Amino acid sequence: MSNPFFSNKGPISLAQIFNILKITNEKKTDFNLFDIKDLNNADKDSITFFHSKKYKDVAKITKASFCLTSDLLKDFLPNTCQPIIVSNVLTAVARITKEFYPDSIEDEFDNKVFNIENKDFGIINHGKNVLVGENVKIGSNCLIGHNSIIEKNVQIGDNCKIGSNTIIRNSIIKNNVTILDNCIIGKKGFGFFPNKKKNFRYPHIGIVVINEDCEIGCGATIDRGSMSNTEIGKNTFLDNQIHIAHNVKIGENTIIAGQVGIAGSSTIGNNVRIGGQAGISGHLKIGNNVDIAGGSGVIKDIPDNSRVMGYPAKNLREFLRENK
Amino acid sequence: MSNPFFSNKGPISLAQIFNILKITNEKKTDFNLFDIKDLNNADKDSITFFHSKKYKDVAKITKASFCLTSDLLKDFLPNTCQPIIVSNVLTAVARITKEFYPDSIEDEFDNKVFNIENKDFGIINHGKNVLVGENVKIGSNCLIGHNSIIEKNVQIGDNCKIGSNTIIRNSIIKNNVTILDNCIIGKKGFGFFPNKKKNFRYPHIGIVVINEDCEIGCGATIDRGSMSNTEIGKNTFLDNQIHIAHNVKIGENTIIAGQVGIAGSSTIGNNVRIGGQAGISGHLKIGNNVDIAGGSGVIKDIPDNSRVMGYPAKNLREFLRENK
Amino acid sequence: MSNPFFSNKGPISLAQIFNILKITNEKKTDFNLFDIKDLNNADKDSITFFHSKKYKDVAKITKASFCLTSDLLKDFLPNTCQPIIVSNVLTAVARITKEFYPDSIEDEFDNKVFNIENKDFGIINHGKNVLVGENVKIGSNCLIGHNSIIEKNVQIGDNCKIGSNTIIRNSIIKNNVTILDNCIIGKKGFGFFPNKKKNFRYPHIGIVVINEDCEIGCGATIDRGSMSNTEIGKNTFLDNQIHIAHNVKIGENTIIAGQVGIAGSSTIGNNVRIGGQAGISGHLKIGNNVDIAGGSGVIKDIPDNSRVMGYPAKNLREFLRENK
Repeated sequence: MSNPFFSNKGPISLAQIFNILKITNEKKTDFNLFDIKDLNNADKDSITFFHSKKYKDVAKITKASFCLTSDLLKDFLPNTCQPIIVSNVLTAVARITKEFYPDSIEDEFDNKVFNIENKDFGIINHGKNVLVGENVKIGSNCLIGHNSIIEKNVQIGDNCKIGSNTIIRNSIIKNNVTILDNCIIGKKGFGFFPNKKKNFRYPHIGIVVINEDCEIGCGATIDRGSMSNTEIGKNTFLDNQIHIAHNVKIGENTIIAGQVGIAGSSTIGNNVRIGGQAGISGHLKIGNNVDIAGGSGVIKDIPDNSRVMGYPAKNLREFLRENK
Repeated sequence: MSNPFFSNKGPISLAQIFNILKITNEKKTDFNLFDIKDLNNADKDSITFFHSKKYKDVAKITKASFCLTSDLLKDFLPNTCQPIIVSNVLTAVARITKEFYPDSIEDEFDNKVFNIENKDFGIINHGKNVLVGENVKIGSNCLIGHNSIIEKNVQIGDNCKIGSNTIIRNSIIKNNVTILDNCIIGKKGFGFFPNKKKNFRYPHIGIVVINEDCEIGCGATIDRGSMSNTEIGKNTFLDNQIHIAHNVKIGENTIIAGQVGIAGSSTIGNNVRIGGQAGISGHLKIGNNVDIAGGSGVIKDIPDNSRVMGYPAKNLREFLRENK
Repeated sequence: MSNPFFSNKGPISLAQIFNILKITNEKKTDFNLFDIKDLNNADKDSITFFHSKKYKDVAKITKASFCLTSDLLKDFLPNTCQPIIVSNVLTAVARITKEFYPDSIEDEFDNKVFNIENKDFGIINHGKNVLVGENVKIGSNCLIGHNSIIEKNVQIGDNCKIGSNTIIRNSIIKNNVTILDNCIIGKKGFGFFPNKKKNFRYPHIGIVVINEDCEIGCGATIDRGSMSNTEIGKNTFLDNQIHIAHNVKIGENTIIAGQVGIAGSSTIGNNVRIGGQAGISGHLKIGNNVDIAGGSGVIKDIPDNSRVMGYPAKNLREFLRENK
């Protein structure tokens, strides 16, 4: 995945990793690991993870040298990849990712911002009290409204219009994008391992990417991804008060009405229309050219060219016939 | 309609209009048009539009001299009104309205605001960092909270209480109105013609009118109208996180609970009660004294004195009997 | 109830109380009342209220000397408690509470705040333009983001993280709590007596209590209670855009996904999971270890250890079987 923003504190030695995971029965070595990546993208310098049998085909050919996994799954790994057996794979992934990317867990406010007037950003028309953080690039001919905060790690293209009271961090905004007032873009997602005494937050090293010509309505919350990005395709328009959770991918030319919520890791196609207050559960795939009626609750994948309505959402005509 | 705020750049000559619409086969004339109005309100100095047969009775007696319409509809017009045939009437309306009212398309932040302390607004108790734009009137005995922005074209009556972090533009707020924190009132609605390469926004020359004694909860978004106003009747109370889309009309003494959404151009009567998270589809008419249960999804008109529940919303008793 | 913040203007003489309620046929006395409390908590110096037969068992043993009630209910009261008969008990309660606690009706912005830099709050890392009101305590090692306003009557524990653009008042925030951006915490609830000419707001003398290790997502609105507190238990996590109404109690280790709304006076147990966009009606009791699926509309009590889905929410398996 593309991760231009979070600073990688690697390499980390295998000895350190065993230490973090409280593994004592393995031979401690000075072997250095440079990153944590998924099975697909890992190379011989990375540690990877394998927590569900549904990834066994990718696991068989991973190029990683080490893999956090369970006793039940370890035999799927190739000989070139040494299993590290842990009781909870995802918690272990969170702990190790936190070592590589310590800045990706919490969302503390950016305390290194400065008033935009203190730096030359070229042709920008900005409001009062605009704050800008480190590692921010802003293209030409942009507008940034009053009291908005462009925190660290943001790239904004040309001809963008950012409203007032909006906060952006860890995001790439392409050309000709309009973001209205009171939005919060690029915060960590709602991701943690529940724990009776104290929940354990997991890292969010993904970013938010908003492609060309999009419009984001007032009061939107668009969370950045955990291990992949949250992304909105070209010329997609969002109405007010919409919530887009971590790792969601939305296609091009899609139209989403007010108060819609899309849960984590779902994928929405191109030319999709979603009516007001509809909700999409997590980890779903909504095809291209789909119409989802307002108020629907979608709890399973929807194929291309479908029209659905209801809770749970079903074929539109069927729903209307049953509910005359 | 009443449109006190958007500056009309007319007159525009018929030759210019043909030019904008890329109509080349008509005789270009210097006839001057002073405004674009609907069939009902147009006079001989206006251009009007006629895009659906359901308006044929009004079309027959329009006083406009020119009318954007289609080949199929043109014969309904009186002899005094010359049809201008276009392939897409609504897109043509948007283009021409944009010529008359160029400021009504985009919602760029108001960059001419100044700190409220720089102008004498009489007896106002205001917080820190309050910004005020041009053409703003504020009555006596008002409160305006911290960081709020009263952008251009706003009239606020007497004894009004505006919270903190709230943004208002293009709105008339009558006496004794309370608007709580984080509201965004008077932004353009979510209105545009979808287009695969780049959606085409249409003008919003309507305003928001909030009548006497209303309360608007925290985090509301109330969009201004496109060709008519968005209006909220006297003594109507809205809870937190409510979205009111463009052109919606809400009656008097109505009570709307948290997280309700009302889609564009719907009309809600007097003494209506709407429970939390209910949604009202667009272009509906909800009568007087209607009770809509929380969570309902209303997709058709509701007559006076009805009690409804469900998605789609139906008679309350019927719904409860079927869902014991 | 615990009410550390609202200043009690008592004592108020019985003569004054009769005057406020326009009761003329009672003998006016100088007997002094020091507070208004519910039947349970009232002592001989308090006035109490009794408006529904379902409280008759508590009424029989109340220690209050005076009680606002109706002719139908007055005979349940003990001889030591003198009934004061009124036509609408709750309206009378509101009027008398307003006399004791005049600051608890309206939510005017706090106009006595000052920039946090003007006072020494110890080890706090704060952003730009942070405003703080009177009677605010902030523990050590806290973060407070840009433009946030900690209005009067707030106690914040140690190691708390408050985001940017957040407003807090009348609240107790315990240790290790994270509150993200754009939240509004401690405002009065949406409580009033409808009246055709002008609704009558009732007092909110409850506060908001957020216990240790909680996380509150972006854009939350958490209203303070009317006669009791709104409270969130330890280690409970809320996602973005959630609305918690007045008097709601939420247990420990509970997880609430985005855009959920909980109506007034409902109680949610420990270890509950509520999916995105679900709504809980008012005055309900949701047990411990309950799972409520996303999009559900809960309109009745849910016992411990249940899994529910649908609108109205029912047993999860039943719902899925009926909606295959």
